[in-house]
Amino acid sequence: MSIDPAALADLDTFTIEVPSWAYGNSGTRFKVFAQPGVPRDPFEKLADAAQVNALTGAAPRVSLHIPWDLVDDFAKLSAYAADLGLQLGAINSNLFQDDDYMLGSLTHPEKRVRDKAIAHHVQCIDVMRSTGSTDLKLWLPDGLNYPGQDSIRGRQDRLADSLQQIYAQLDAEHRLLIEYKFFEPAFYTMDIPDWGTSLLHCLALGPQAQVVLDTGHHAPGTNIEFIVAQLLRQNRLGAFDFNSRFYADDDLIVGAADPFQLFRILFEIVVQDAQKPASGVNFMLDQCHNIEPKIQGQIRSVLNVQEALAKALLVDRSELRAAQERGDVLGANGVLMDAYNTDVREALADRREAAGLPRDPIAAYRASGYQEKINAERVGGTQAGWGA
Amino acid sequence: MSIDPAALADLDTFTIEVPSWAYGNSGTRFKVFAQPGVPRDPFEKLADAAQVNALTGAAPRVSLHIPWDLVDDFAKLSAYAADLGLQLGAINSNLFQDDDYMLGSLTHPEKRVRDKAIAHHVQCIDVMRSTGSTDLKLWLPDGLNYPGQDSIRGRQDRLADSLQQIYAQLDAEHRLLIEYKFFEPAFYTMDIPDWGTSLLHCLALGPQAQVVLDTGHHAPGTNIEFIVAQLLRQNRLGAFDFNSRFYADDDLIVGAADPFQLFRILFEIVVQDAQKPASGVNFMLDQCHNIEPKIQGQIRSVLNVQEALAKALLVDRSELRAAQERGDVLGANGVLMDAYNTDVREALADRREAAGLPRDPIAAYRASGYQEKINAERVGGTQAGWGA
Amino acid sequence: MSIDPAALADLDTFTIEVPSWAYGNSGTRFKVFAQPGVPRDPFEKLADAAQVNALTGAAPRVSLHIPWDLVDDFAKLSAYAADLGLQLGAINSNLFQDDDYMLGSLTHPEKRVRDKAIAHHVQCIDVMRSTGSTDLKLWLPDGLNYPGQDSIRGRQDRLADSLQQIYAQLDAEHRLLIEYKFFEPAFYTMDIPDWGTSLLHCLALGPQAQVVLDTGHHAPGTNIEFIVAQLLRQNRLGAFDFNSRFYADDDLIVGAADPFQLFRILFEIVVQDAQKPASGVNFMLDQCHNIEPKIQGQIRSVLNVQEALAKALLVDRSELRAAQERGDVLGANGVLMDAYNTDVREALADRREAAGLPRDPIAAYRASGYQEKINAERVGGTQAGWGA
Amino acid sequence: MSIDPAALADLDTFTIEVPSWAYGNSGTRFKVFAQPGVPRDPFEKLADAAQVNALTGAAPRVSLHIPWDLVDDFAKLSAYAADLGLQLGAINSNLFQDDDYMLGSLTHPEKRVRDKAIAHHVQCIDVMRSTGSTDLKLWLPDGLNYPGQDSIRGRQDRLADSLQQIYAQLDAEHRLLIEYKFFEPAFYTMDIPDWGTSLLHCLALGPQAQVVLDTGHHAPGTNIEFIVAQLLRQNRLGAFDFNSRFYADDDLIVGAADPFQLFRILFEIVVQDAQKPASGVNFMLDQCHNIEPKIQGQIRSVLNVQEALAKALLVDRSELRAAQERGDVLGANGVLMDAYNTDVREALADRREAAGLPRDPIAAYRASGYQEKINAERVGGTQAGWGA
Repeated sequence: MSIDPAALADLDTFTIEVPSWAYGNSGTRFKVFAQPGVPRDPFEKLADAAQVNALTGAAPRVSLHIPWDLVDDFAKLSAYAADLGLQLGAINSNLFQDDDYMLGSLTHPEKRVRDKAIAHHVQCIDVMRSTGSTDLKLWLPDGLNYPGQDSIRGRQDRLADSLQQIYAQLDAEHRLLIEYKFFEPAFYTMDIPDWGTSLLHCLALGPQAQVVLDTGHHAPGTNIEFIVAQLLRQNRLGAFDFNSRFYADDDLIVGAADPFQLFRILFEIVVQDAQKPASGVNFMLDQCHNIEPKIQGQIRSVLNVQEALAKALLVDRSELRAAQERGDVLGANGVLMDAYNTDVREALADRREAAGLPRDPIAAYRASGYQEKINAERVGGTQAGWGA
Repeated sequence: MSIDPAALADLDTFTIEVPSWAYGNSGTRFKVFAQPGVPRDPFEKLADAAQVNALTGAAPRVSLHIPWDLVDDFAKLSAYAADLGLQLGAINSNLFQDDDYMLGSLTHPEKRVRDKAIAHHVQCIDVMRSTGSTDLKLWLPDGLNYPGQDSIRGRQDRLADSLQQIYAQLDAEHRLLIEYKFFEPAFYTMDIPDWGTSLLHCLALGPQAQVVLDTGHHAPGTNIEFIVAQLLRQNRLGAFDFNSRFYADDDLIVGAADPFQLFRILFEIVVQDAQKPASGVNFMLDQCHNIEPKIQGQIRSVLNVQEALAKALLVDRSELRAAQERGDVLGANGVLMDAYNTDVREALADRREAAGLPRDPIAAYRASGYQEKINAERVGGTQAGWGA
Repeated sequence: MSIDPAALADLDTFTIEVPSWAYGNSGTRFKVFAQPGVPRDPFEKLADAAQVNALTGAAPRVSLHIPWDLVDDFAKLSAYAADLGLQLGAINSNLFQDDDYMLGSLTHPEKRVRDKAIAHHVQCIDVMRSTGSTDLKLWLPDGLNYPGQDSIRGRQDRLADSLQQIYAQLDAEHRLLIEYKFFEPAFYTMDIPDWGTSLLHCLALGPQAQVVLDTGHHAPGTNIEFIVAQLLRQNRLGAFDFNSRFYADDDLIVGAADPFQLFRILFEIVVQDAQKPASGVNFMLDQCHNIEPKIQGQIRSVLNVQEALAKALLVDRSELRAAQERGDVLGANGVLMDAYNTDVREALADRREAAGLPRDPIAAYRASGYQEKINAERVGGTQAGWGA
Repeated sequence: MSIDPAALADLDTFTIEVPSWAYGNSGTRFKVFAQPGVPRDPFEKLADAAQVNALTGAAPRVSLHIPWDLVDDFAKLSAYAADLGLQLGAINSNLFQDDDYMLGSLTHPEKRVRDKAIAHHVQCIDVMRSTGSTDLKLWLPDGLNYPGQDSIRGRQDRLADSLQQIYAQLDAEHRLLIEYKFFEPAFYTMDIPDWGTSLLHCLALGPQAQVVLDTGHHAPGTNIEFIVAQLLRQNRLGAFDFNSRFYADDDLIVGAADPFQLFRILFEIVVQDAQKPASGVNFMLDQCHNIEPKIQGQIRSVLNVQEALAKALLVDRSELRAAQERGDVLGANGVLMDAYNTDVREALADRREAAGLPRDPIAAYRASGYQEKINAERVGGTQAGWGA
C-alpha cells in the first residue's frame, strides 16, 4: 500500500499530552526501582518532557499532579515551561495519599473528610488559574475492599454531592474530567468502576463535565473502541489516559501490549473526526516506566500513538463503507487490515524530517548525551516518585 | 443467628417469573441432549411451569418467547394458564434465528432487514395485547465478529432509530425492557454490550424503557451488585434474567456458581426496597438445563433466589449502618456475613408448610410421579427447543 | 526495514493443515446460518480444501473428523485427495455428540460408556491405517456443570485408564495428540482444562503422546507463547489448532483478533526452530466461519499465519540477544517490534509469484468463479455441519 | 442438617500457619496506610501471632520472611516463639527488593545476579537450620514487562539451573516449596506463571520439591479446586497460600470474596484426606490487611478456613457417590450444597468452648484490650512493612 502524504495531514495538529509523573520513579507494591537521572522537582520534569517534545514535535503539553508538583510560584513554572516550548496541561488531583482517605475521599462516610477532598479540588482549580490549565482531571480511587464495608448506594449519593460542589467552583472555560477504573486500589468495588457510572455523574453535573478513558481501566475482554465510539456519540469523551496492559492496570507503554487495539481505538477517533483539535479530546499518556528508561519510554509512546493514528487515517473509508454496505465481512475487514498492515514508519520519518525533526527520535535521543548529562548532574536530593 | 419470622415477611409477595423455554431442550453449539418428557408445545410448557408454582408458591408467571411460543389463539393459552394458576408474563422477541439476521437485525445496514425486525416487535406487542402481558423484552444479539465488518457508530444510530419506532408502538401500560450482553453470538463487539449502552438507549426513549440485567452477561470480575444499585438509583432496573456462571454466559442454575454473589445482589435489592412488587422489578429466570432435569432445575432456582433473599432480609441494617459509620471494616463485613452464614432453609420450610406447600419442593416433585407421567405421555411429536 | 529473501526460506517447507469441517456450516448455540455452496460430503470438502492449497501452495493436508467424515471407502477418499494434490491429515475423534456422552465419555462413571468411547478411538485408528494418517487428535469435551456432579479426582483416574487403553492401540508411527480446553461445553470444570493436565497425561502415556495447543482454549490474559516455549522445551508440542478470539473460544480467523499475539507465538516457534518440518509440530487451523465465506476464510487464515511467520523470521536475533544481554529493555523490545511492524505482504506476494502462485490468493479466488460454480452445483442434499 | 460432632474430628489436628508479614503494614502501589500498634520487629510480630493462636487454638506456626525477619539470634527468636506457644514455620525468601533484581533474579541474564539470588537461598537454608523450619518457600517474582525483553526459553533454562543449585543445598528433612503466579510484578509474562510450570520444575528437581498454591495467583475463572485435586494426585501439593480475590492478587481475607470456592477447595482436600497432618500440606495464610485491623483480620481468616473445612467434612460422601454413580446431577450437587448451606458456627463455638477457647474469638479479641495496649506501647521506631 503506497501512502498518500495528504492522508496524514491531520498529524500536523495532533498532539499528545505527557504526564509529569512519567519522568519520576514508579513501581509496584513490591518495589520501586530507582533509576539514574530521575528529576527531583517539577522543573526537572519539565526539562525531560521538553526532550520528548523537541524530538517528536508532538508533545507540547505536560499534565501536573497535585500535590506532587506543587511549587511556590506557578507563574514561574509556567514561564519555565514556555521557555522550553511547553505548556502546562491538565491538573490532576490526588485522592489516594492522605491518611484520612483510607476509607474514601469524596465518598467517605464523614463529612469532614469529604470536605477536605472537595477543598483539595478548590486548591487544584486555583492552580489552574495560575497556570492557565483548563482541565481538572479527577480519578477517584475510592471504593470498598469488603462486601458490606459501606453502602454502595450511599456512596453514590455522597459522590454526586461532592462532585456538584467541585463543579460549582469551575470557571466557564474549565472542564471537569472524570476518570473511571475497574479495580485497584479497591478490591471489592470501585465507586466509579465503569464508563457508565462516570458518564451518569457527568450528565448530572452539566456540559463542562466529561469522561476520561484510561485504556488500562477495564475488565478483561472489554471492547474499548466501542466505548470510544459511544462516548463520542454522546459528546462526552473529554480525554484519554493512554497506556497498555496484558492483565490489569499494567501501565505499560501505549501500543506495547496490543498495537492492533490501539489502531482500532484511533480508527473510531478518526471515524468521528476527533483527532482534530476542535474535538476537544485531550490525548494524554499515563504510564509507569518501572523498568525501562523514562524519557525513551515517553518518546516510544508518542511514536506509537502517531503510528496508530497514521494507520487509522490510511483506512480507505469509502471502500470500507462499500464493503460494509454489501455485507462483505471479509472485504470490509480486509480494508481495515490493509491500513493496519501498512508500514508507516518511513512516511512518518519523512514528515519529521520535513519538519526539521530527527527521523528516528529514539536514536536521536540516545545519541544526544542528554541522559548521560542528567545522570551525572542529578545527584543528591530526593528523586520524584509517587510518594506511596 | 435465630431467625425472626417477621424479617422474612416480604417473601410473601416476592415472585419469580419462569421462562417457557427452560422446559424445552437446550444445549451448546456442540450438542443439544434431548431429555425425556420435554414439552412439545406451549401448553405443555405451561403445565410444567405450573408444577414449579404449585410446589413453591412463588412462580406464578411464565415468560413467552416469540416465535417459539406462537399459538393460533393466545386467548386460549391465557385461559389455560389461568386454569393452572398461572399468568402469562413478559413477551420475548427473537432477533437471532431468521436467516436475514446473519449480519444484524435492528442495526442491520439494510433498511429492509431493520423494518422486518421492527415489525416482529409490533407482532410481539400484538401478542401482549392478547395475553395481557405488559413487558416486551428485547435482547439484541446483533454485533460484529470482525473489526471493520460494520460501523460501530453507524449501528448505534440505526439502533436508536429502530428502538424509537418500536417504543412508539407501546401502549401506556407497556414497558420495553432492553437487555445487554458482553459477548455471544457476536465475538468482536455486541451492539449493546453493557449496562451503560442499554441505559443510554432507555434514557433516549423515555420512561417506559428499562434495563434488563442478565447475571451472566458481564465481563469477568464485574461487580454486578454495583450495577443493580446504580440502575435502581436511576429508576431504570426493569428486570433480572437470573442464572449463574463460572466463565461466560453459562446459563447455569441461579446461585449454583456463586451463592454469595446472589446474596449480595439481593442485598442491594433490599437496600432500595426493590423486593417489593411496587418497585416494578421483574425477577425472571433465564437458564439452560442442558444436562439436569428441567422442572427440578427450575424449582431449585426458585428456592435459591428465595434463600438468598431471605438472607438479605436478615441483615441487621441498623447494626450495619453503625459499623459503616464508625469505619469498622471487619465489623460491617461481619454483619453482612452473619446473615449470609445463617441457614435459612428450615425457616423457609416452615413458611411453606404454613402456606400449605411442601416443606421440600424438590423431594415433593420427585415423589409426585409427574416426571414419570410426562415421560410416558409425551412420546412422538417434536420436542420444544431453541430451533437453532 | 528491507527484507532479505533468504531470511524467509523456511516458508518453503512450512505447511498448514486445514480442517474438513471448516468448509461446512457452523454457528453458535443460537443459530447456524447456512451458506450457499457448502459441501454435502467429504469429497466436496476436499475439493474446497484443494482450492486453498492451489492458491496458497501451503495447505496440502486436510484433517478429518470422525464420524462427520466417515465414508465407506477411505482408500477412495485418499486417492481423491491425491488427485487434488492433497493428503489426508490428522484424524479427529468425536466425544460430544453421542447421547451416551451427556455426562462424559472417557471419564464417564459407567464402564460401558467409557468402553464405547475407547472403541471409537480404535475405529479412528483403523481409519488412520486406511488413510495413512499418523496423528490421532483427541479433544475431550468431558467435564462438569455443577460442583459435586462427579468426582474431579475420580474422573482423572478414569481418564488416565481410558487414555492408556487407547495409547496401547497405536502403531509405532502414530501419535496421540491430546488437546486441552478452559471451558465449554462444560461450565464448572473441564476434565482437561489446561496444558498442565494434558501434559501430565502425555507424560504418563509415553513418547507418542503430545499436547495440542488450541489458541482459543485459555483463560483470559493467558500468555500463550509462554506455553508454546514450555511445551517445546519438553518436546511435547504436537500440534496447534490455530484460530483467534476476543472473549472465549470464539474460533475466529487466526490473527484476526490479535495479530501481534500470533506473531509472538510464531516467534517462540522460530526460537526453537519448530517451524521446520523436522520438529513434528503440526500447524493446523480449527475455526468456525459462521458469517464469512468459508473458503476465503481459510485462505485468509493461511495468509495470516504465513505473514506472522515471515515477521518472526525477520527478527534480528543476534541484535535481540545483544540487547537482552545488556539489559536494554526498550532496545530488545524494539528489535522485535521492528520485525512486527514490517510490511511483509509484498515479499510474500513475490515469493508466491516466483512459485507460480497468484500474488493475491483472495483476489484470485474471488476472480476464479469457483464459488459461483459450487453455489450453482451444490443444490439439494444435506449441507455438512457439526450435526449438533 | 444436624451436625454430628464426630464428623468434625479432623479439626482437632488441622492447623493454619500465619505469616509474620500480615501483622506489618501493607498496601497498594498507591499508598500504604499505617495502622496503630503495628509491630516494629519480628518479636512483636510473634506476640501478635500468639494472640491469634491463643484465641483460635489453630494457628501454632508463623512463617518468616527473609530479610524482613532477619534477627541476629534466631535461637533467641525460636525460644521466644516457644514461650508464646508458637513454632517458627516456613522460611520465605525475597527476590524482589534488591536493586540487582530489576530484570530478574534466578533467571537474570547475568550469572552474577543469579549467583546472588542463589546465595540468598543458602542464607535462608541456614536460617532454617537455626529455627528448625523444614519448608523453604520460593516465590519467583521474575518475569518480563515487554515482549522481546528477554528470552522466555532462555529464562526457563537459567531457572532450572538456579533451582537445581538451591535444591542441592537442602537437608534431607527440608522441602523446597515453589509458588507460581499469573502476573504482577511482571506484566508481560512471569517466569513461573502457572501450576504446570511450577510442577515441571519440581519434577525435574526431585521429591523434596513441591508446589505452593496461592489462591490469588490464577487467571480469571480458573477452577482452583481442580488444580488442588490434580496436585494431590501427583503428590506434589506442598502448601497453600490462602487469601481471596475479586480481580487479581487482591490478597483479601480468605473466604471473603467467594466462600463457596473456599469450601470447594477444602472439599477436594477432604476427598484426598489432605486435611490430616500426615499429608504434609502446609495450610498457610498470605494476605494483606491494607485497611482492616491486622490481628482481627488474621483471626477472621483462621475462622473462615475452619468453617469451610467443617462444611467440607460434613459432606455425606456415600450419598454423594451414590448420586454421582446414578448420574443424578442435581442430587449430587444437592448433597454438596446441603453441607455448604449448613451453619457450622455454633458447632465450632461448642468445640472451642470444650477446648477452653472463647466461643467467639473476634469478640474475645476486641474485649481483651490487647489492641489498645499495643497501640499505646508501640510508639516510635519503624513499623514493619514490606519495605517496597
